[in-house]
Amino acid sequence: MTEQGEGAILEVMTETLFPTALDAHALERGAALTPSFNADGLIAAILQHAQTDEVLMLGWMNAEALKLTLDSGEVWFFSRARQELWRKGETSGQVQQMVELRVDCDQDAVLVKVLPQGDGGVCHVGFRSCFYRVLEDGKLEERP
Amino acid sequence: MTEQGEGAILEVMTETLFPTALDAHALERGAALTPSFNADGLIAAILQHAQTDEVLMLGWMNAEALKLTLDSGEVWFFSRARQELWRKGETSGQVQQMVELRVDCDQDAVLVKVLPQGDGGVCHVGFRSCFYRVLEDGKLEERP
Repeated sequence: MTEQGEGAILEVMTETLFPTALDAHALERGAALTPSFNADGLIAAILQHAQTDEVLMLGWMNAEALKLTLDSGEVWFFSRARQELWRKGETSGQVQQMVELRVDCDQDAVLVKVLPQGDGGVCHVGFRSCFYRVLEDGKLEERP
Repeated sequence: MTEQGEGAILEVMTETLFPTALDAHALERGAALTPSFNADGLIAAILQHAQTDEVLMLGWMNAEALKLTLDSGEVWFFSRARQELWRKGETSGQVQQMVELRVDCDQDAVLVKVLPQGDGGVCHVGFRSCFYRVLEDGKLEERP
C-alpha cells in the first residue's frame, strides 16, 4: 500500500472513533472531545499520580488506545517501538487505573490522573516515576 | 537544500549542544544529560507548578531551546506552528521561572518544575493551566 493510502485509512479510522472540531472555539471551549492526533496518528498522554500529584511518565496513544482507555478505565498506549497497541501493565503488572482524564486547550495532549496498580510504579527501570533524575550543576542525579 | 542535508545539519547542531548516550545503561542510569530528540529535532517538555504540583502544559523544545532554558533559568520552547524559538511569556508576560528540571528514563521527555510569572498562568485561553477541561460522562467540562 502507498504511504498516502495508509494515511487516508488512518484518518478515516480516527474520525470514526472521535469527531473533529469545527473551529478554534469548539476546539478550545467546546464540550466535545475532539483529540488532535499528530502526523503519526498519536496524541501525547501525561500520567500523573491521582493521590500524590507526582508526574509519572509521558506516553503516546493512537485513537484506538485512547478509546480503549476511556472504555476500560485502564491506560492503553500505542508503542512506537513495536508499532502496536499496548495495555500498560500487561506484562509488568503496572496497570494504571484511570481516575480522571483532562485535555489541553488545543486537544493535542491529555493528562490522565491514575492509581498505579501492581508494585505501585510505572517505570521499567524500577523507579516509581520515569522522572527519577534531576539535573544538578550539569549532572543528572537520581532522586526518585 | 535537500531534506537529507537539513537532517545532517540538525544532527551536528544537536550533538554540539548535548552529547549522545553511548549505550542503554548510560541513557537510563548515567549522570550525563543526553536528550533524545525526535525526527523533527524536538523533545517533549512538561511544565508542572513547583508549589501546587499542578500540570500546566506540554510544549516542545529543540536542542537550542533546551540549552537556553538551562542557561537562563526561564523556559524556552520551539514553536512548531511558527518554526522558531519562543521565549515563553515574551508577549504574554507568562514567563516560566525554572525551579527544577528532570529527565525521564529514555531521555525523550523533560519535566520542568516552574513558578509562573506575570498573571501566574500559562494558557493563552486564559486559564491557569492548559488542562482546564475534564471528561465527564463523555463530555468536556471546564473545571480549572
